[in-house]
Amino acid sequence: MITARKHGIITFLSDFGMRDWYVPAVKGEILKKNPAAMIIDITHGLDPFSVREAAFILKNVYRSFPTGTVHLAVIDPGVGSPRHAIIVCSHGHYFVGPDNGLFSYVCSRDTGVYAIKEKRSASRTFHARDIFAPVAVSLSMGIKPQALGVRVRKFVRFKFPPLIKKHRLVKGEVIYIDRFGNLITNIPGTIKVRRFVINDSYMAPVGSYYGQTKVDRLIALRGSAGYYEIASYGGDAANKTNVHIGTKVIGYL
Amino acid sequence: MITARKHGIITFLSDFGMRDWYVPAVKGEILKKNPAAMIIDITHGLDPFSVREAAFILKNVYRSFPTGTVHLAVIDPGVGSPRHAIIVCSHGHYFVGPDNGLFSYVCSRDTGVYAIKEKRSASRTFHARDIFAPVAVSLSMGIKPQALGVRVRKFVRFKFPPLIKKHRLVKGEVIYIDRFGNLITNIPGTIKVRRFVINDSYMAPVGSYYGQTKVDRLIALRGSAGYYEIASYGGDAANKTNVHIGTKVIGYL
Amino acid sequence: MITARKHGIITFLSDFGMRDWYVPAVKGEILKKNPAAMIIDITHGLDPFSVREAAFILKNVYRSFPTGTVHLAVIDPGVGSPRHAIIVCSHGHYFVGPDNGLFSYVCSRDTGVYAIKEKRSASRTFHARDIFAPVAVSLSMGIKPQALGVRVRKFVRFKFPPLIKKHRLVKGEVIYIDRFGNLITNIPGTIKVRRFVINDSYMAPVGSYYGQTKVDRLIALRGSAGYYEIASYGGDAANKTNVHIGTKVIGYL
Repeated sequence: MITARKHGIITFLSDFGMRDWYVPAVKGEILKKNPAAMIIDITHGLDPFSVREAAFILKNVYRSFPTGTVHLAVIDPGVGSPRHAIIVCSHGHYFVGPDNGLFSYVCSRDTGVYAIKEKRSASRTFHARDIFAPVAVSLSMGIKPQALGVRVRKFVRFKFPPLIKKHRLVKGEVIYIDRFGNLITNIPGTIKVRRFVINDSYMAPVGSYYGQTKVDRLIALRGSAGYYEIASYGGDAANKTNVHIGTKVIGYL
Repeated sequence: MITARKHGIITFLSDFGMRDWYVPAVKGEILKKNPAAMIIDITHGLDPFSVREAAFILKNVYRSFPTGTVHLAVIDPGVGSPRHAIIVCSHGHYFVGPDNGLFSYVCSRDTGVYAIKEKRSASRTFHARDIFAPVAVSLSMGIKPQALGVRVRKFVRFKFPPLIKKHRLVKGEVIYIDRFGNLITNIPGTIKVRRFVINDSYMAPVGSYYGQTKVDRLIALRGSAGYYEIASYGGDAANKTNVHIGTKVIGYL
Repeated sequence: MITARKHGIITFLSDFGMRDWYVPAVKGEILKKNPAAMIIDITHGLDPFSVREAAFILKNVYRSFPTGTVHLAVIDPGVGSPRHAIIVCSHGHYFVGPDNGLFSYVCSRDTGVYAIKEKRSASRTFHARDIFAPVAVSLSMGIKPQALGVRVRKFVRFKFPPLIKKHRLVKGEVIYIDRFGNLITNIPGTIKVRRFVINDSYMAPVGSYYGQTKVDRLIALRGSAGYYEIASYGGDAANKTNVHIGTKVIGYL
């Protein structure tokens, strides 16, 4: 069972951006109920409605936080519609947000999912402030998910993009592009790859750190998220190769 | 009377951006005097000198914080000039910043305004760090505004853009455009409007949530700030309609 | 000697941006070891690999924080290579990051520098999370740098761009451009300059506050960092003059 702490940590991911008042309004509502809450931004800078990228970010970051942390994640094009609001309990962490696949990659065998009872007084456009934040803060103060929602068996969960393994190669794809232009693939660093070919046109040998190649040359590394990533040393591999999320990548063993 | 708490919350809004050292320098000065202060960013991403947009943001966000919160707001093209620095006490909250209209929309009948005594040692370009932050932190530690400034009757206050109501229509304008491209109007959600026409060319029926229309179609909703906003579902209404702040909007009752 | 506090302040500067999970992963690792740590972002928005600009920012901001603060700074194109990871103790503050010149401008005569012992388990691409954050949090909890590294005499340190002083003029350069487009020079405000000429083509008289000139006119001020800066009132001096970091500036006494 998850034990939340009174001075709990609440992380916050959204597509709200940092220019408007949406992010601080959510934080204010949290602090109104728990002035000792520690709120840590994950990101608010994804393109609007980037549910899959957000799911990948949550997968990569949640383990850096102590168990008992509440992860509030709101990318919610369906706000106000009949879509569910859920609490996901997994790996000793809580996740709170809309039921649209955001938590697909943090689920485990012992995952418990609860549909949140909606309040009638909530706005139809800002559930982060009116529904999700109050639930997150309640969890951070030790209230059990059973008291906040009803256990459900069905929830939206999409599959991690699958690999195709052949004789001496593995076919995957680019699943995330970071701010440096590094191309993060779905090919785990545990597979022993010698070199990658992207989009049938660019080759990247596998190395062990960025600076091992020359400036502006491609190199593939075992990245910190556990997957191979293809970088251009001192440059931007995404710009260089004109690759997008979903572009095919072939690894030669 | 407002009661500030020792471990007080200080919100911070500016046009400083997040790239330079201006925002953390202000936070450091706060923590030097009150290491237990909880500092929450409102926004630092507005276009430089956007006083009216900042005033609208403050109006929308301050109520999400507990009473006693100190709201530090510095958009200050007149820094170093003889413009006043003020403390505004309103609705149980404190507001600290330059006297240029920033606090126009948070004033109430019982608003008390105090002109801050300037220190001679302050720089001429960075009053956020040298004057406003020390005042904000003093308020957060329970020091009364009377001890920090002199009560004044006159201060800069601009009017909220007025509505024109006719027989079966209401004329307003776009007063804010958010990061999703939603067009926020000055027409309160309490007025029963059936549809909106923007700029004599675009029509938006009133609905109750974004997803009620088709992708890329306009829809008007009662927004979370209490005003009608016009959105393009899954898209960007501002891009689609080429509308700016100040564009006229007509609501048909 | 520096005394770190249990509930210590850790500032964090990087070129990671705010879109990916790199910044919150570092914060999570800090909170896992010290849940009472107060983490303040300096900036994550510099262009990738801007070591000199980051060094200037650190110089300008660290004094705003109380002594004992730990400043974690990671702009690290050489991550995973044999470059050192260091702790710098200077002016009663701690600085932690790669040994590539980041701490050049915060060193003093009594600076102590320690090379951090690397862990074998660290990733080759994310030392901020795997090496620097654990060291920063240890320092914030009172562990001595001697227990975390080995004293070294040699470390990378670049020189602050020098001035050339002649009979009635001083030659310097633009060393930083802020988000307002203000051109910050390396000419100290203690030198009595009457006017500046930039790039042989633009003239800026010295004034005492931005609003002292007309809109869109250049004016030079003693900036909050201690150096002359050239601004365009209500505008953007960098755009107006097409000046870059390194452009020569002449001050006439």
